[in-house]
Amino acid sequence: MNKRKICVVVTARPSYSRIRSALLAIRDHPDLELQLVVAASALLDRYGNAIQVIERDGFDIAERVYMVLEGENLVTSAKSTGIGLSELATVLDNIEPDAVVTIADRYETMATAVAASYMNIPLVHVQGGEVTGSIDEKVRHAVTKLSNLHLVSTKLAAERVRRLGEDPGAVHVTGCPSIDIAAEVAASPRMDFDPFVKYGGVGPSADLAHGYLVVMQHPVTTEYELARQQVEETLYAVKDFGLPVLWFWPNVDAGSDGTSKGIRVFREKEQPANFHLFRNMFPEDFLRLLCSATAIVGNSSVAIRECSYLGVPAVNIGSRQQGRERGKNVIDVDHDRRDIADAIATHIKRGKPSCDLLYGDGKAGTRIADCLATAGLTIEKRLTY
Amino acid sequence: MNKRKICVVVTARPSYSRIRSALLAIRDHPDLELQLVVAASALLDRYGNAIQVIERDGFDIAERVYMVLEGENLVTSAKSTGIGLSELATVLDNIEPDAVVTIADRYETMATAVAASYMNIPLVHVQGGEVTGSIDEKVRHAVTKLSNLHLVSTKLAAERVRRLGEDPGAVHVTGCPSIDIAAEVAASPRMDFDPFVKYGGVGPSADLAHGYLVVMQHPVTTEYELARQQVEETLYAVKDFGLPVLWFWPNVDAGSDGTSKGIRVFREKEQPANFHLFRNMFPEDFLRLLCSATAIVGNSSVAIRECSYLGVPAVNIGSRQQGRERGKNVIDVDHDRRDIADAIATHIKRGKPSCDLLYGDGKAGTRIADCLATAGLTIEKRLTY
Amino acid sequence: MNKRKICVVVTARPSYSRIRSALLAIRDHPDLELQLVVAASALLDRYGNAIQVIERDGFDIAERVYMVLEGENLVTSAKSTGIGLSELATVLDNIEPDAVVTIADRYETMATAVAASYMNIPLVHVQGGEVTGSIDEKVRHAVTKLSNLHLVSTKLAAERVRRLGEDPGAVHVTGCPSIDIAAEVAASPRMDFDPFVKYGGVGPSADLAHGYLVVMQHPVTTEYELARQQVEETLYAVKDFGLPVLWFWPNVDAGSDGTSKGIRVFREKEQPANFHLFRNMFPEDFLRLLCSATAIVGNSSVAIRECSYLGVPAVNIGSRQQGRERGKNVIDVDHDRRDIADAIATHIKRGKPSCDLLYGDGKAGTRIADCLATAGLTIEKRLTY
Amino acid sequence: MNKRKICVVVTARPSYSRIRSALLAIRDHPDLELQLVVAASALLDRYGNAIQVIERDGFDIAERVYMVLEGENLVTSAKSTGIGLSELATVLDNIEPDAVVTIADRYETMATAVAASYMNIPLVHVQGGEVTGSIDEKVRHAVTKLSNLHLVSTKLAAERVRRLGEDPGAVHVTGCPSIDIAAEVAASPRMDFDPFVKYGGVGPSADLAHGYLVVMQHPVTTEYELARQQVEETLYAVKDFGLPVLWFWPNVDAGSDGTSKGIRVFREKEQPANFHLFRNMFPEDFLRLLCSATAIVGNSSVAIRECSYLGVPAVNIGSRQQGRERGKNVIDVDHDRRDIADAIATHIKRGKPSCDLLYGDGKAGTRIADCLATAGLTIEKRLTY
Repeated sequence: MNKRKICVVVTARPSYSRIRSALLAIRDHPDLELQLVVAASALLDRYGNAIQVIERDGFDIAERVYMVLEGENLVTSAKSTGIGLSELATVLDNIEPDAVVTIADRYETMATAVAASYMNIPLVHVQGGEVTGSIDEKVRHAVTKLSNLHLVSTKLAAERVRRLGEDPGAVHVTGCPSIDIAAEVAASPRMDFDPFVKYGGVGPSADLAHGYLVVMQHPVTTEYELARQQVEETLYAVKDFGLPVLWFWPNVDAGSDGTSKGIRVFREKEQPANFHLFRNMFPEDFLRLLCSATAIVGNSSVAIRECSYLGVPAVNIGSRQQGRERGKNVIDVDHDRRDIADAIATHIKRGKPSCDLLYGDGKAGTRIADCLATAGLTIEKRLTY
Repeated sequence: MNKRKICVVVTARPSYSRIRSALLAIRDHPDLELQLVVAASALLDRYGNAIQVIERDGFDIAERVYMVLEGENLVTSAKSTGIGLSELATVLDNIEPDAVVTIADRYETMATAVAASYMNIPLVHVQGGEVTGSIDEKVRHAVTKLSNLHLVSTKLAAERVRRLGEDPGAVHVTGCPSIDIAAEVAASPRMDFDPFVKYGGVGPSADLAHGYLVVMQHPVTTEYELARQQVEETLYAVKDFGLPVLWFWPNVDAGSDGTSKGIRVFREKEQPANFHLFRNMFPEDFLRLLCSATAIVGNSSVAIRECSYLGVPAVNIGSRQQGRERGKNVIDVDHDRRDIADAIATHIKRGKPSCDLLYGDGKAGTRIADCLATAGLTIEKRLTY
Repeated sequence: MNKRKICVVVTARPSYSRIRSALLAIRDHPDLELQLVVAASALLDRYGNAIQVIERDGFDIAERVYMVLEGENLVTSAKSTGIGLSELATVLDNIEPDAVVTIADRYETMATAVAASYMNIPLVHVQGGEVTGSIDEKVRHAVTKLSNLHLVSTKLAAERVRRLGEDPGAVHVTGCPSIDIAAEVAASPRMDFDPFVKYGGVGPSADLAHGYLVVMQHPVTTEYELARQQVEETLYAVKDFGLPVLWFWPNVDAGSDGTSKGIRVFREKEQPANFHLFRNMFPEDFLRLLCSATAIVGNSSVAIRECSYLGVPAVNIGSRQQGRERGKNVIDVDHDRRDIADAIATHIKRGKPSCDLLYGDGKAGTRIADCLATAGLTIEKRLTY
Repeated sequence: MNKRKICVVVTARPSYSRIRSALLAIRDHPDLELQLVVAASALLDRYGNAIQVIERDGFDIAERVYMVLEGENLVTSAKSTGIGLSELATVLDNIEPDAVVTIADRYETMATAVAASYMNIPLVHVQGGEVTGSIDEKVRHAVTKLSNLHLVSTKLAAERVRRLGEDPGAVHVTGCPSIDIAAEVAASPRMDFDPFVKYGGVGPSADLAHGYLVVMQHPVTTEYELARQQVEETLYAVKDFGLPVLWFWPNVDAGSDGTSKGIRVFREKEQPANFHLFRNMFPEDFLRLLCSATAIVGNSSVAIRECSYLGVPAVNIGSRQQGRERGKNVIDVDHDRRDIADAIATHIKRGKPSCDLLYGDGKAGTRIADCLATAGLTIEKRLTY
């Protein structure tokens, strides 16, 4: 029997973290051949240079797809997706996969989903069926409707995908691969590196022995102009806590300009002695950093997903993660500096939550690879109602 | 109060027929301003030159979007959609509509849907919630998931859109605008023109007084290589019926080459005296032609929709319309020349069916305009479950 | 030593005829590896399906590049070139040639020239240094300025390229490869096929034993609106000559719609019994057809180039070939039906001209391959003055 | 008489400086209407945000064209140009200019030149006829061959354009508009602002009263991998001079990654106390900064052009400006830290050179506007030999 050729398109640093253990399992599966396509901001230095991490992890890269049109506004988001669609059609025509895997709900994943669908290649969606705010919500369910196989993280997500009219036989709960890395890290959580030495970044170093805050806040596309104002609430909320603040730059997105500008202006004006800005870290390092953190603050999905498993206190701000299932580790607040500060204080009082298996048990990667090897692959589908 | 600017993107001749009465009602509505964008094959001579019909109907055209990459295969379908997405982003940025309307489920409608969504413009989908075969099925429901307002043709379609997790308050049964034209034609069905004189075409003229067959058969995208073989079954089925055959060329689509070649080879080999090929007709003329036809044969949606209202016997071939609700006028058959011929014979015995209001009562256009004028327009949405 | 990888980009049927013998010589050269890229209208059925001829000739095709945006106007010409540039960048990045060869002066050759230049690949221009009318003139010399090696057809062309500031050591007179085919045909000029049987086409067959006219007239881009009027002059000029008229459809170009419409309207109105329309022929068949023709009429470069060698009387109409060197076989006229008819009459009186070696001696292909194998390949250049 | 509509496409910060006085003169000319299109890196924050300067200068912006595909390598340079060509075709179709002006020789100017040519719009080239190294050389002369009117900076440039076969009547020596700003600044050269306060940037402030070095070094496209190594030679050459070093980030270009990385690594390793990095300045501020500088070091054309008029000592490194005419203020050196340091030392000994009118007398802007108002505008052209 020929190996099934599985093309996975990775378009961003966080998407890579969310799929890495599955990539390893696909690559090592006797019945599968991995065709890894690295695209969009995953290729770009100023968005975390995911490709460097990918190469360090020993993956062969089948194709690189440059598709980010500079400008960071809504028009360029749409155009970048159009460019990506056109480029990915060429790629899929060249590498002829038996199935294409697209991850989650970033805007540019639509390029992957449409290219595969229109070229009559079975489309596999990982992490469908979840609910959040903003444009991601539209993208996620539209991708579900273009997909032929659904590998979801939670039971509730599976239920939602079935209710969207998908064939129940095509929906599998695998857990989220991001939990697989978290499970490895949880087995040996000691931070075995100095983040300031290893990752540089901007701002003074700090003593992390007595707690620290990790912040990751992305602009919310449909609230474009508010991005700068929102980031300021967070900046001032964490400023006076007496703890080192380790802040991570946001992804490439419409509005990230507003967020970045907010951060820059704050630093110039306040000259904060306890802030350090990082661009990115290797996923395991980042998770180890979280394991010992006092809390994670912002609107990153890491706070909801990996941190539920790791038991890291999380303050989730605003609408970005609205609707997403969450474990006991999360306190939700608005973009309000006092609410944010209060939530951090509450977490400090309560202490570290216990491990929650909501998003998986650490074996999602192998389950995904097994599904890809054995599931029926078809391109025809029809509403079940 | 400012008028709401409603941008409608028309991408093909059949889509224009399906939206025309709504365009008239939007243009004439006191609270609406129509921004008509003509794109894709609607601009092209060899696919029926819809733009000529549109201009004859007196519409102002806001923008023209060339987006069809020649080649008529799956790769160029995907690339054309990518080009269209990129071009439409520019258009929407220039004309700044309050809402964008996209029609039905052709592959290139995805370009409209993604452009509007990504630019935070409320998206309105006309004719969602239906069920058919092939890639249209994926496109239709994906567009539903990107849309904020749903104006559907039937009650069952409305029910399906709600089950897809859409807000029931955003789903309206308006009927299909194509029925509006049918209703006008049905009021005075006499054919007041000579189709051979008015539309030219290829092949001898014929006496239409004693019945004739109208054929319209489109290639089915996901059965690309079969296109030629399938069209041959139909060609030989209608050849020996002793009736004039009025055959219409297919739309631009992957595979239309196969269909066209099948037709050309048949004509050269068989030199059929009763075949006449047309490129296209003005919609009313086409419907009048159908009113007096013995039967319509092929896989066009006109046979299902307009012909249910008009009571025209229809032989529907193959999978293209599978799943679509149908009235009493339709007999379904496979791509088999004997089955097709038998169904035509059955229709001749039975005679003309009565009018069926399944797809509307002839007032869809005004209902659509009213909805667009009064409905809440938002860009945020979330699964209802 | 590694073989030099020579990428040749063929974008149209006539370009293939002009490079074919060089392609054969490159493929068979011990020090060269041919990477044949087929692009633009060379892939399209309705512009002569050059790719079918290329495959019949036994060439392996490295990549196919769909780049023609439908619409046939000036905007789509520009956009098609932009699309081609973007696509060819991917292709060149994938196949990594040591040199890229671009042919002559069609608008889309600019995509090849810019892609190669910007990617630091030595660019070779075949058939530079000539002079004609219209946009081709701009394109040709702009490509010269982007090129590193110049393989030209005539001594005068070589002189012009040097005067354009190119290094004299990079300019070689090879002759035009189109003459190589002409030389083969001239060695056995008898027409060994029935064109009506072999190539079909539209219109009645004719007896070709007592002479006939071959017409090939392309629209001139910068005189877009005149295209239809100009073709009518030619149509009426050749109509009443008492000779069969074998008319060939034009290339894809802005304005070809005007030309096509002129032809169609003429046929419907005049119902000419002596007109037969062909789409295209295999190059050798076409040249054999020319060998026995009374005259070639229109504005094709074949009349100037191959026909000078073959000694076929030519009536060259209008500005398209203005400035191009010509042999004794050509009479130049304006777009005026009487002038055209007079020139045909003059040719009939004079009889067949003798062979002229102006554009080559039939060995251009091998000379080109030898140059590609031995010339220094560099990307740096500078004006010589 | 209708005003002539003059479309000027500005694609980068330095191009704006080179055309600004002409833009003012066109805008204020009674017979001209300015259509200013801002494109490519001129729209982007991280390449100097030229659009902010343009708006501060009070210009209306007709269209914005996002066309930079992120990736900063040779493939993305080619693709960005293809995207730009496609986008500019839409723009020119919308604004229908009587002539299009393109500036100098950056890679993306080819998009402007091809779009205008292919759409039959007269193309005007400013700053043709010069000679330099690298890809700019190819681009500049190719644009000349696509252009219909040539407004050049020097007599030698005019002579070269004529020798390239251009109609002598279409070639005008206007001087370079960049000198117009220099002339204004030279009239009141005192630095009336604190650059560290006004422009921020990275690194410590410095006392500029006793001299300082200004450095601007761009990567040279065709020497891609060397970019980092080359910038290091300059970094170490200026480090130990006992003078403040004001370093400006390079433009967007293939290789700017290498250059940027070189700068970052140097700063981390050497922690230089006398280095300050700026992104950009308003043109007049930058020229005032140069007026009092000890020397300008690098490979910017400002050192050759404006600084010849201003009498600023310049050390020009490497091949980028090779071939360009230069005044008495320039010492040329290789990428060698000792040679660079020696040249600076020589300049310090010699003192400030006198004003040189080589590139203009300060009235280029009005001359350009007058030419645009009165010159014959045509699209046809032909080699003069």
